[in-house]
Amino acid sequence: MTICVDVLATPGELEGEDLSGAFVVVVDVVRATTTLLAGLEAGARRAHAVESVEDALDLRRSIGEDDVVLCGERGGRRIEGFDLGNSPLEFDPESVAGKILVCTTTNGTRTLSRCEGADGLWLGCFRNRAALVERFAKALRGGLGGGPSSRLLIACAGKEGRLGLDDHLCAGLIVEGLAAAVPEARLSDGARSARAAAKEIGMPSAAFLATTAAGEALVEIGLKADLEYCAELDVSRSVPRLEAGGFSLSERT
Amino acid sequence: MTICVDVLATPGELEGEDLSGAFVVVVDVVRATTTLLAGLEAGARRAHAVESVEDALDLRRSIGEDDVVLCGERGGRRIEGFDLGNSPLEFDPESVAGKILVCTTTNGTRTLSRCEGADGLWLGCFRNRAALVERFAKALRGGLGGGPSSRLLIACAGKEGRLGLDDHLCAGLIVEGLAAAVPEARLSDGARSARAAAKEIGMPSAAFLATTAAGEALVEIGLKADLEYCAELDVSRSVPRLEAGGFSLSERT
Repeated sequence: MTICVDVLATPGELEGEDLSGAFVVVVDVVRATTTLLAGLEAGARRAHAVESVEDALDLRRSIGEDDVVLCGERGGRRIEGFDLGNSPLEFDPESVAGKILVCTTTNGTRTLSRCEGADGLWLGCFRNRAALVERFAKALRGGLGGGPSSRLLIACAGKEGRLGLDDHLCAGLIVEGLAAAVPEARLSDGARSARAAAKEIGMPSAAFLATTAAGEALVEIGLKADLEYCAELDVSRSVPRLEAGGFSLSERT
Repeated sequence: MTICVDVLATPGELEGEDLSGAFVVVVDVVRATTTLLAGLEAGARRAHAVESVEDALDLRRSIGEDDVVLCGERGGRRIEGFDLGNSPLEFDPESVAGKILVCTTTNGTRTLSRCEGADGLWLGCFRNRAALVERFAKALRGGLGGGPSSRLLIACAGKEGRLGLDDHLCAGLIVEGLAAAVPEARLSDGARSARAAAKEIGMPSAAFLATTAAGEALVEIGLKADLEYCAELDVSRSVPRLEAGGFSLSERT
Protein backbone atom coordinates (compact mmCIF):
# COMPACT_ATOMS: atom_id res chain seq x y z
CA MET A 1 0.00 0.00 0.00
CA THR A 2 1.45 3.34 -1.10
CA ILE A 3 0.24 6.24 1.01
CA CYS A 4 0.65 9.63 -0.63
CA VAL A 5 -0.09 13.10 0.70
CA ASP A 6 -0.13 15.79 -1.95
CA VAL A 7 -0.69 19.56 -1.96
CA LEU A 8 -1.73 21.71 -4.90
CA ALA A 9 -0.60 25.23 -4.05
CA THR A 10 -2.64 26.75 -6.88
CA PRO A 11 -5.96 25.88 -8.58
CA GLY A 12 -4.27 25.73 -12.01
CA GLU A 13 -2.53 22.53 -10.89
CA LEU A 14 -5.91 20.79 -10.94
CA GLU A 15 -5.94 20.91 -14.74
CA GLY A 16 -5.17 17.50 -16.11
CA GLU A 17 -5.10 16.07 -12.59
CA ASP A 18 -6.88 12.72 -12.32
CA LEU A 19 -8.86 12.86 -9.09
CA SER A 20 -10.46 9.43 -9.37
CA GLY A 21 -9.17 7.34 -6.52
CA ALA A 22 -8.11 10.45 -4.59
CA PHE A 23 -9.62 11.99 -1.52
CA VAL A 24 -9.49 15.78 -1.70
CA VAL A 25 -9.61 18.52 0.92
CA VAL A 26 -10.21 22.00 -0.50
CA VAL A 27 -8.77 24.85 1.56
CA ASP A 28 -9.92 28.46 1.21
CA VAL A 29 -9.19 29.89 4.64
CA VAL A 30 -10.19 33.46 3.73
CA ARG A 31 -13.05 32.70 3.50
CA ALA A 32 -15.17 30.14 1.60
CA THR A 33 -14.31 26.94 3.45
CA THR A 34 -14.23 28.69 6.84
CA THR A 35 -17.64 30.22 6.12
CA LEU A 36 -19.29 27.03 4.85
CA LEU A 37 -18.04 25.24 7.97
CA ALA A 38 -19.51 28.05 10.10
CA GLY A 39 -22.83 27.76 8.28
CA LEU A 40 -23.05 23.99 8.82
CA GLU A 41 -22.09 24.33 12.49
CA ALA A 42 -24.81 26.97 12.85
CA GLY A 43 -27.31 24.32 11.80
CA ALA A 44 -27.62 24.46 8.01
CA ARG A 45 -28.67 21.03 6.71
CA ARG A 46 -26.26 21.12 3.84
CA ALA A 47 -24.23 23.52 1.72
CA HIS A 48 -23.90 23.60 -2.07
CA ALA A 49 -20.91 25.34 -3.65
CA VAL A 50 -21.57 26.58 -7.19
CA GLU A 51 -19.43 28.54 -9.64
CA SER A 52 -21.72 31.34 -10.81
CA VAL A 53 -24.52 33.59 -9.60
CA GLU A 54 -26.73 32.09 -12.31
CA ASP A 55 -26.04 28.56 -11.05
CA ALA A 56 -26.92 29.71 -7.54
CA LEU A 57 -30.25 31.19 -8.64
CA ASP A 58 -31.07 28.09 -10.71
CA LEU A 59 -30.32 25.78 -7.81
CA ARG A 60 -32.46 27.84 -5.43
CA ARG A 61 -35.32 27.58 -7.89
CA SER A 62 -35.01 23.81 -8.17
CA ILE A 63 -34.69 23.23 -4.41
CA GLY A 64 -37.43 25.68 -3.48
CA GLU A 65 -37.00 29.27 -2.30
CA ASP A 66 -38.15 28.75 1.28
CA ASP A 67 -35.50 26.16 2.04
CA VAL A 68 -32.52 28.03 0.61
CA VAL A 69 -30.19 30.68 1.96
CA LEU A 70 -28.25 32.26 -0.92
CA CYS A 71 -24.78 33.37 0.14
CA GLY A 72 -21.46 34.37 -1.29
CA GLU A 73 -19.41 37.29 -2.59
CA ARG A 74 -17.94 39.06 -5.55
CA GLY A 75 -15.10 41.46 -4.82
CA GLY A 76 -15.44 40.35 -1.18
CA ARG A 77 -18.94 41.85 -0.85
CA ARG A 78 -22.41 40.27 -0.64
CA ILE A 79 -23.97 39.71 -4.06
CA GLU A 80 -27.04 41.83 -4.82
CA GLY A 81 -30.23 39.94 -4.03
CA PHE A 82 -28.39 37.33 -1.91
CA ASP A 83 -29.38 36.67 1.70
CA LEU A 84 -25.88 36.63 3.16
CA GLY A 85 -22.34 37.53 2.13
CA ASN A 86 -19.28 35.36 2.72
CA SER A 87 -18.48 36.43 6.28
CA PRO A 88 -18.52 33.51 8.75
CA LEU A 89 -19.81 35.90 11.42
CA GLU A 90 -23.12 36.28 9.53
CA PHE A 91 -23.92 32.58 9.79
CA ASP A 92 -25.87 32.21 13.04
CA PRO A 93 -28.62 29.70 13.80
CA GLU A 94 -31.27 32.39 13.29
CA SER A 95 -30.22 32.85 9.69
CA VAL A 96 -29.39 29.31 8.61
CA ALA A 97 -30.65 26.58 10.99
CA GLY A 98 -32.48 23.88 9.04
CA LYS A 99 -31.77 25.66 5.74
CA ILE A 100 -29.80 24.67 2.65
CA LEU A 101 -26.93 27.01 1.82
CA VAL A 102 -26.24 27.79 -1.84
CA CYS A 103 -22.94 29.60 -2.07
CA THR A 104 -20.79 31.13 -4.80
CA THR A 105 -17.47 32.91 -4.21
CA THR A 106 -14.59 34.16 -6.35
CA ASN A 107 -12.01 31.49 -5.56
CA GLY A 108 -13.23 28.83 -3.15
CA THR A 109 -16.41 27.56 -4.77
CA ARG A 110 -14.70 27.49 -8.17
CA THR A 111 -11.99 25.21 -6.82
CA LEU A 112 -14.62 23.05 -5.09
CA SER A 113 -16.51 22.63 -8.36
CA ARG A 114 -13.35 21.49 -10.12
CA CYS A 115 -12.81 18.77 -7.51
CA GLU A 116 -16.17 17.08 -7.79
CA GLY A 117 -14.62 14.12 -9.63
CA ALA A 118 -12.72 13.07 -6.51
CA ASP A 119 -13.63 9.89 -4.61
CA GLY A 120 -14.31 12.05 -1.57
CA LEU A 121 -14.33 15.81 -1.02
CA TRP A 122 -14.01 17.72 2.25
CA LEU A 123 -13.79 21.33 3.41
CA GLY A 124 -10.62 22.37 5.24
CA CYS A 125 -9.54 25.49 7.10
CA PHE A 126 -7.54 26.39 10.19
CA ARG A 127 -10.55 25.78 12.46
CA ASN A 128 -10.91 22.08 11.62
CA ARG A 129 -7.25 21.33 10.89
CA ALA A 130 -6.74 18.88 13.78
CA ALA A 131 -10.08 17.16 13.09
CA LEU A 132 -9.07 16.61 9.46
CA VAL A 133 -5.66 15.26 10.48
CA GLU A 134 -7.31 12.74 12.81
CA ARG A 135 -9.92 11.75 10.24
CA PHE A 136 -7.32 11.09 7.52
CA ALA A 137 -4.53 9.69 9.67
CA LYS A 138 -6.81 6.76 10.39
CA ALA A 139 -8.19 6.50 6.87
CA LEU A 140 -4.86 6.72 5.03
CA ARG A 141 -3.62 3.60 6.81
CA GLY A 142 -6.82 1.71 6.01
CA GLY A 143 -6.65 2.62 2.31
CA LEU A 144 -8.80 5.48 1.14
CA GLY A 145 -11.41 4.33 -1.32
CA GLY A 146 -10.37 0.70 -0.87
CA GLY A 147 -7.84 0.75 -3.74
CA PRO A 148 -4.22 -0.45 -3.72
CA SER A 149 -2.99 3.11 -3.13
CA SER A 150 -4.14 5.73 -0.74
CA ARG A 151 -3.88 9.34 -1.87
CA LEU A 152 -4.97 12.49 -0.08
CA LEU A 153 -4.75 15.70 -2.04
CA ILE A 154 -5.05 19.10 -0.39
CA ALA A 155 -6.13 21.68 -2.99
CA CYS A 156 -5.57 25.33 -2.13
CA ALA A 157 -8.03 27.78 -3.64
CA GLY A 158 -5.51 30.63 -3.64
CA LYS A 159 -6.40 34.09 -4.89
CA GLU A 160 -7.36 34.67 -8.52
CA GLY A 161 -5.28 31.79 -9.77
CA ARG A 162 -2.27 32.69 -7.63
CA LEU A 163 -0.84 31.00 -4.54
CA GLY A 164 -2.44 32.34 -1.34
CA LEU A 165 -0.18 32.26 1.70
CA ASP A 166 -3.15 31.72 4.04
CA ASP A 167 -4.20 28.54 2.23
CA HIS A 168 -0.62 27.36 1.71
CA LEU A 169 0.09 27.67 5.45
CA CYS A 170 -3.09 25.77 6.29
CA ALA A 171 -2.20 22.99 3.82
CA GLY A 172 1.29 22.84 5.34
CA LEU A 173 -0.11 22.49 8.86
CA ILE A 174 -2.38 19.65 7.72
CA VAL A 175 0.63 17.92 6.10
CA GLU A 176 2.69 18.44 9.24
CA GLY A 177 0.01 16.71 11.31
CA LEU A 178 -0.41 13.85 8.86
CA ALA A 179 3.34 13.28 8.43
CA ALA A 180 3.69 12.99 12.20
CA ALA A 181 0.74 10.58 12.48
CA VAL A 182 1.55 8.52 9.37
CA PRO A 183 5.35 8.63 9.04
CA GLU A 184 5.31 6.12 6.20
CA ALA A 185 3.29 8.51 4.01
CA ARG A 186 5.07 9.70 0.90
CA LEU A 187 4.93 13.50 0.55
CA SER A 188 4.83 15.08 -2.92
CA ASP A 189 7.00 18.09 -3.82
CA GLY A 190 3.95 20.29 -3.21
CA ALA A 191 3.31 18.75 0.21
CA ARG A 192 6.97 19.14 1.23
CA SER A 193 7.05 22.77 0.11
CA ALA A 194 3.87 23.60 2.05
CA ARG A 195 5.10 21.78 5.15
CA ALA A 196 8.49 23.52 5.04
CA ALA A 197 6.83 26.93 4.68
CA ALA A 198 4.48 26.12 7.60
CA LYS A 199 7.35 25.07 9.84
CA GLU A 200 9.04 28.40 9.19
CA ILE A 201 5.91 30.58 9.44
CA GLY A 202 4.41 28.90 12.49
CA MET A 203 0.86 29.19 13.80
CA PRO A 204 -1.72 31.47 12.14
CA SER A 205 -3.04 34.67 13.67
CA ALA A 206 -5.34 37.46 12.53
CA ALA A 207 -2.30 39.74 12.26
CA PHE A 208 -0.59 37.22 10.00
CA LEU A 209 -3.69 36.82 7.82
CA ALA A 210 -3.91 40.61 7.44
CA THR A 211 -0.51 40.53 5.68
CA THR A 212 -1.63 37.99 3.05
CA ALA A 213 -3.18 39.02 -0.27
CA ALA A 214 -6.60 37.63 0.70
CA GLY A 215 -6.53 39.15 4.18
CA GLU A 216 -5.33 42.51 2.93
CA ALA A 217 -8.23 42.68 0.48
CA LEU A 218 -10.68 42.03 3.34
CA VAL A 219 -9.14 44.68 5.57
CA GLU A 220 -9.46 47.16 2.68
CA ILE A 221 -13.24 46.67 2.51
CA GLY A 222 -13.69 46.88 6.27
CA LEU A 223 -14.03 43.17 7.05
CA LYS A 224 -10.99 42.80 9.30
CA ALA A 225 -13.11 41.19 12.04
CA ASP A 226 -13.50 38.05 9.89
CA LEU A 227 -9.77 37.38 10.17
CA GLU A 228 -9.91 36.65 13.92
CA TYR A 229 -12.45 33.92 13.25
CA CYS A 230 -10.60 32.52 10.22
CA ALA A 231 -7.28 32.36 12.12
CA GLU A 232 -8.50 30.20 15.03
CA LEU A 233 -6.72 26.85 14.88
CA ASP A 234 -8.13 23.43 15.82
CA VAL A 235 -11.32 24.74 17.45
CA SER A 236 -13.82 22.68 15.43
CA ARG A 237 -14.46 18.94 15.35
CA SER A 238 -16.42 19.09 12.09
CA VAL A 239 -15.21 17.63 8.79
CA PRO A 240 -17.81 18.65 6.17
CA ARG A 241 -18.02 16.10 3.36
CA LEU A 242 -19.67 16.28 -0.04
CA GLU A 243 -22.60 13.92 -0.44
CA ALA A 244 -25.26 14.08 -3.13
CA GLY A 245 -24.06 17.47 -4.34
CA GLY A 246 -23.97 19.16 -0.94
CA PHE A 247 -21.60 19.34 2.02
CA SER A 248 -22.92 18.16 5.36
CA LEU A 249 -21.70 17.20 8.81
CA SER A 250 -22.65 13.52 8.44
CA GLU A 251 -19.04 12.76 9.41
CA ARG A 252 -18.48 14.34 12.79
CA THR A 253 -15.20 13.16 14.35
CA MET B 1 8.58 53.78 -5.93
CA THR B 2 7.03 50.43 -5.06
CA ILE B 3 9.46 47.56 -5.24
CA CYS B 4 7.83 44.13 -5.52
CA VAL B 5 9.38 40.68 -5.58
CA ASP B 6 7.01 37.95 -6.71
CA VAL B 7 7.26 34.17 -7.17
CA LEU B 8 5.04 31.99 -9.33
CA ALA B 9 5.37 28.48 -7.89
CA THR B 10 3.66 26.92 -10.92
CA PRO B 11 3.50 27.74 -14.64
CA GLY B 12 -0.32 27.88 -14.55
CA GLU B 13 -0.07 31.10 -12.54
CA LEU B 14 1.29 32.82 -15.66
CA GLU B 15 -2.14 32.64 -17.25
CA GLY B 16 -3.74 36.04 -17.19
CA GLU B 17 -0.59 37.51 -15.66
CA ASP B 18 0.37 40.85 -17.21
CA LEU B 19 4.14 40.73 -17.66
CA SER B 20 4.52 44.15 -19.27
CA GLY B 21 6.57 46.28 -16.93
CA ALA B 22 7.88 43.20 -15.12
CA PHE B 23 11.33 41.68 -15.20
CA VAL B 24 11.15 37.90 -15.11
CA VAL B 25 13.60 35.18 -14.09
CA VAL B 26 12.58 31.69 -15.18
CA VAL B 27 13.87 28.86 -12.98
CA ASP B 28 14.06 25.24 -14.13
CA VAL B 29 16.89 23.86 -12.02
CA VAL B 30 16.52 20.28 -13.28
CA ARG B 31 17.49 21.03 -15.97
CA ALA B 32 16.62 23.54 -18.73
CA THR B 33 17.93 26.76 -17.20
CA THR B 34 20.98 25.05 -15.70
CA THR B 35 21.75 23.48 -19.07
CA LEU B 36 21.27 26.64 -21.15
CA LEU B 37 23.56 28.48 -18.73
CA ALA B 38 26.14 25.69 -19.15
CA GLY B 39 25.87 25.94 -22.93
CA LEU B 40 26.42 29.70 -22.94
CA GLU B 41 29.35 29.40 -20.55
CA ALA B 42 30.86 26.75 -22.83
CA GLY B 43 30.91 29.37 -25.57
CA ALA B 44 27.60 29.18 -27.43
CA ARG B 45 26.82 32.60 -28.96
CA ARG B 46 23.21 32.50 -27.96
CA ALA B 47 20.45 30.07 -26.98
CA HIS B 48 16.88 29.95 -28.26
CA ALA B 49 14.22 28.20 -26.18
CA VAL B 50 11.27 26.93 -28.23
CA GLU B 51 8.16 24.96 -27.30
CA SER B 52 8.08 22.12 -29.81
CA VAL B 53 10.36 19.87 -31.83
CA GLU B 54 8.80 21.33 -34.99
CA ASP B 55 9.63 24.87 -33.87
CA ALA B 56 13.21 23.77 -33.20
CA LEU B 57 13.59 22.24 -36.67
CA ASP B 58 12.03 25.33 -38.31
CA LEU B 59 14.35 27.66 -36.44
CA ARG B 60 17.41 25.61 -37.37
CA ARG B 61 16.37 25.83 -41.01
CA SER B 62 15.96 29.60 -40.89
CA ILE B 63 19.24 30.22 -39.01
CA GLY B 64 21.23 27.77 -41.09
CA GLU B 65 22.16 24.19 -40.19
CA ASP B 66 25.89 24.75 -39.76
CA ASP B 67 25.45 27.36 -37.04
CA VAL B 68 22.93 25.50 -34.93
CA VAL B 69 23.21 22.87 -32.20
CA LEU B 70 19.80 21.28 -31.62
CA CYS B 71 19.33 20.22 -28.03
CA GLY B 72 16.63 19.22 -25.57
CA GLU B 73 14.63 16.30 -24.24
CA ARG B 74 11.35 14.50 -24.13
CA GLY B 75 10.87 12.13 -21.21
CA GLY B 76 14.29 13.31 -20.02
CA ARG B 77 16.07 11.76 -23.02
CA ARG B 78 17.68 13.31 -26.11
CA ILE B 79 15.22 13.83 -28.96
CA GLU B 80 15.82 11.68 -32.04
CA GLY B 81 17.86 13.56 -34.62
CA PHE B 82 19.02 16.19 -32.12
CA ASP B 83 22.69 16.89 -31.50
CA LEU B 84 22.56 16.98 -27.72
CA GLY B 85 20.16 16.09 -24.93
CA ASN B 86 19.39 18.28 -21.93
CA SER B 87 22.29 17.28 -19.70
CA PRO B 88 24.53 20.22 -18.74
CA LEU B 89 27.51 17.84 -18.77
CA GLU B 90 27.18 17.41 -22.54
CA PHE B 91 27.74 21.11 -23.23
CA ASP B 92 31.50 21.50 -23.64
CA PRO B 93 33.33 23.99 -25.87
CA GLU B 94 33.98 21.28 -28.43
CA SER B 95 30.27 20.79 -28.98
CA VAL B 96 28.93 24.32 -28.73
CA ALA B 97 31.59 27.08 -28.92
CA GLY B 98 30.54 29.72 -31.44
CA LYS B 99 27.26 27.93 -32.13
CA ILE B 100 23.63 28.90 -31.65
CA LEU B 101 21.69 26.56 -29.36
CA VAL B 102 18.09 25.75 -30.24
CA CYS B 103 16.51 23.96 -27.32
CA THR B 104 13.16 22.41 -26.48
CA THR B 105 12.31 20.68 -23.20
CA THR B 106 9.19 19.42 -21.45
CA ASN B 107 8.80 22.13 -18.82
CA GLY B 108 11.48 24.82 -18.96
CA THR B 109 11.31 26.03 -22.54
CA ARG B 110 7.51 26.08 -22.40
CA THR B 111 7.61 28.39 -19.41
CA LEU B 112 10.25 30.54 -21.11
CA SER B 113 8.06 30.91 -24.19
CA ARG B 114 5.14 32.06 -22.05
CA CYS B 115 7.27 34.80 -20.50
CA GLU B 116 8.40 36.47 -23.70
CA GLY B 117 6.05 39.43 -23.09
CA ALA B 118 8.10 40.53 -20.08
CA ASP B 119 10.17 43.72 -20.17
CA GLY B 120 13.24 41.60 -19.48
CA LEU B 121 13.78 37.84 -19.22
CA TRP B 122 16.64 35.97 -17.55
CA LEU B 123 17.62 32.37 -16.81
CA GLY B 124 17.97 31.38 -13.17
CA CYS B 125 19.24 28.29 -11.39
CA PHE B 126 21.22 27.42 -8.25
CA ARG B 127 24.53 28.05 -10.05
CA ASN B 128 23.89 31.73 -10.78
CA ARG B 129 21.70 32.50 -7.76
CA ALA B 130 24.09 35.00 -6.13
CA ALA B 131 24.84 36.69 -9.47
CA LEU B 132 21.10 37.20 -10.06
CA VAL B 133 20.60 38.58 -6.56
CA GLU B 134 23.39 41.12 -7.11
CA ARG B 135 22.14 42.08 -10.54
CA PHE B 136 18.58 42.70 -9.35
CA ALA B 137 19.35 44.15 -5.93
CA LYS B 138 20.93 47.10 -7.73
CA ALA B 139 18.32 47.29 -10.46
CA LEU B 140 15.25 47.06 -8.19
CA ARG B 141 16.30 50.21 -6.38
CA GLY B 142 16.90 52.06 -9.64
CA GLY B 143 13.48 51.14 -11.03
CA LEU B 144 13.31 48.23 -13.45
CA GLY B 145 12.13 49.36 -16.85
CA GLY B 146 12.06 52.99 -15.74
CA GLY B 147 8.39 52.93 -14.63
CA PRO B 148 6.91 54.12 -11.33
CA SER B 149 6.99 50.60 -9.94
CA SER B 150 9.69 48.01 -9.97
CA ARG B 151 8.61 44.38 -10.16
CA LEU B 152 10.70 41.25 -10.36
CA LEU B 153 8.86 38.01 -10.94
CA ILE B 154 10.52 34.62 -10.49
CA ALA B 155 8.62 32.02 -12.53
CA CYS B 156 9.20 28.37 -11.61
CA ALA B 157 8.86 25.88 -14.45
CA GLY B 158 7.84 23.05 -12.13
CA LYS B 159 7.10 19.57 -13.40
CA GLU B 160 4.22 18.93 -15.80
CA GLY B 161 2.19 21.83 -14.47
CA ARG B 162 2.88 21.00 -10.84
CA LEU B 163 5.07 22.71 -8.26
CA GLY B 164 8.67 21.40 -8.37
CA LEU B 165 10.47 21.52 -5.04
CA ASP B 166 13.83 22.08 -6.77
CA ASP B 167 12.61 25.22 -8.51
CA HIS B 168 10.65 26.42 -5.48
CA LEU B 169 13.74 26.15 -3.29
CA CYS B 170 15.82 28.06 -5.86
CA ALA B 171 13.18 30.81 -6.10
CA GLY B 172 13.09 31.00 -2.31
CA LEU B 173 16.87 31.36 -2.11
CA ILE B 174 16.77 34.19 -4.68
CA VAL B 175 14.03 35.93 -2.64
CA GLU B 176 16.03 35.46 0.54
CA GLY B 177 19.02 37.19 -1.04
CA LEU B 178 16.94 40.02 -2.48
CA ALA B 179 14.98 40.61 0.73
CA ALA B 180 18.26 40.94 2.64
CA ALA B 181 19.73 43.33 0.04
CA VAL B 182 16.54 45.37 -0.53
CA PRO B 183 14.65 45.28 2.78
CA GLU B 184 12.06 47.76 1.53
CA ALA B 185 10.95 45.33 -1.20
CA ARG B 186 7.39 44.11 -0.86
CA LEU B 187 7.15 40.31 -1.08
CA SER B 188 4.06 38.69 -2.62
CA ASP B 189 2.36 35.70 -0.99
CA GLY B 190 4.20 33.47 -3.48
CA ALA B 191 7.56 35.04 -2.64
CA ARG B 192 6.97 34.69 1.10
CA SER B 193 5.95 31.07 0.77
CA ALA B 194 9.04 30.23 -1.32
CA ARG B 195 11.33 32.09 1.07
CA ALA B 196 9.83 30.37 4.13
CA ALA B 197 10.23 26.95 2.51
CA ALA B 198 13.85 27.77 1.58
CA LYS B 199 14.67 28.86 5.13
CA GLU B 200 13.41 25.54 6.41
CA ILE B 201 14.95 23.34 3.71
CA GLY B 202 18.35 25.05 3.59
CA MET B 203 21.00 24.75 0.91
CA PRO B 204 20.60 22.41 -2.08
CA SER B 205 22.57 19.23 -2.61
CA ALA B 206 22.52 16.42 -5.13
CA ALA B 207 21.03 14.16 -2.46
CA PHE B 208 18.22 16.65 -1.88
CA LEU B 209 17.54 16.99 -5.62
CA ALA B 210 17.33 13.22 -5.92
CA THR B 211 14.31 13.29 -3.58
CA THR B 212 12.34 15.79 -5.72
CA ALA B 213 10.00 14.73 -8.52
CA ALA B 214 12.30 16.11 -11.23
CA GLY B 215 15.44 14.63 -9.70
CA GLU B 216 13.82 11.26 -9.09
CA ALA B 217 12.82 11.05 -12.74
CA LEU B 218 16.44 11.70 -13.77
CA VAL B 219 17.81 9.07 -11.42
CA GLU B 220 15.36 6.57 -12.89
CA ILE B 221 16.78 7.03 -16.39
CA GLY B 222 20.39 6.86 -15.23
CA LEU B 223 21.21 10.58 -15.25
CA LYS B 224 21.98 10.99 -11.56
CA ALA B 225 25.35 12.63 -12.38
CA ASP B 226 23.53 15.72 -13.65
CA LEU B 227 22.22 16.42 -10.15
CA GLU B 228 25.68 17.20 -8.72
CA TYR B 229 26.10 19.91 -11.34
CA CYS B 230 22.57 21.29 -10.94
CA ALA B 231 22.91 21.50 -7.14
CA GLU B 232 26.05 23.67 -7.06
CA LEU B 233 25.13 27.03 -5.55
CA ASP B 234 26.55 30.45 -6.48
CA VAL B 235 29.38 29.14 -8.67
CA SER B 236 28.56 31.16 -11.81
CA ARG B 237 28.73 34.90 -12.47
CA SER B 238 26.58 34.70 -15.62
CA VAL B 239 23.07 36.12 -15.91
CA PRO B 240 21.80 35.05 -19.35
CA ARG B 241 19.32 37.56 -20.74
CA LEU B 242 16.90 37.33 -23.66
CA GLU B 243 17.73 39.68 -26.52
CA ALA B 244 16.40 39.46 -30.07
CA GLY B 245 14.84 36.05 -29.42
CA GLY B 246 17.90 34.42 -27.91
CA PHE B 247 19.60 34.27 -24.51
CA SER B 248 23.17 35.48 -24.34
CA LEU B 249 25.79 36.50 -21.80
CA SER B 250 25.82 40.17 -22.86
CA GLU B 251 25.19 40.97 -19.18
CA ARG B 252 28.04 39.42 -17.23
CA THR B 253 28.08 40.64 -13.63
